[in-house]
Amino acid sequence: MLIKSLKNIDKKPVNMEGVKNAFRQVPIGKADESPNLSFRVFTLGPGGHTPYHTHESEHVNYFISGQGAIQDEKGELHSVQEGDFSLILPQEKHQYKNMSDTEDLVFICAVMKEYE
Amino acid sequence: MLIKSLKNIDKKPVNMEGVKNAFRQVPIGKADESPNLSFRVFTLGPGGHTPYHTHESEHVNYFISGQGAIQDEKGELHSVQEGDFSLILPQEKHQYKNMSDTEDLVFICAVMKEYE
Repeated sequence: MLIKSLKNIDKKPVNMEGVKNAFRQVPIGKADESPNLSFRVFTLGPGGHTPYHTHESEHVNYFISGQGAIQDEKGELHSVQEGDFSLILPQEKHQYKNMSDTEDLVFICAVMKEYE
Repeated sequence: MLIKSLKNIDKKPVNMEGVKNAFRQVPIGKADESPNLSFRVFTLGPGGHTPYHTHESEHVNYFISGQGAIQDEKGELHSVQEGDFSLILPQEKHQYKNMSDTEDLVFICAVMKEYE
């Protein structure tokens, strides 16, 4: 058994094309010898976003705090906020965006550990 | 893409031996055709707990609100609260407990969908 508090997990900037003002933590993952699952946490500062991209892994998300949106494969924005869950299917084009000028958007992004 | 708010998800009492004052929601799972992962949410009312048991699936948890504890295989209690993550390994004996007399303990319990 392992218990960790989010505030004690290393937070690193995400350096990837198409990313702005984004930070990544991995509370539970490969380094913990998790058998199958990895929980990453992304923090998008004001104006922040992830790449508008596709990949073979699914995402399961929980939005911890903030006001955001997910851009779907048609380019449409869908609002998300604290208490929302989302599922992004494999090969579904998507982008997470912070829609607030002042607050961070913080969310869990669970993947199979191979895609951590 | 699918987005759901926790407050709109059916919440059902958990009827299982060793369980007290526990409710279950499944924001993302088999019914959503999730490829691999299921996110369940458990709410333990004051005095509530899950069974003290083992199983072959791992659990990855995020504690959304409340004051709780996880009892480990030695019977020791480990405090958990909002912002904490935990990993329970396969076959590791465990029990989630609400340690508050007034507030609910609400947490995500992610599993491979076969164990949903």
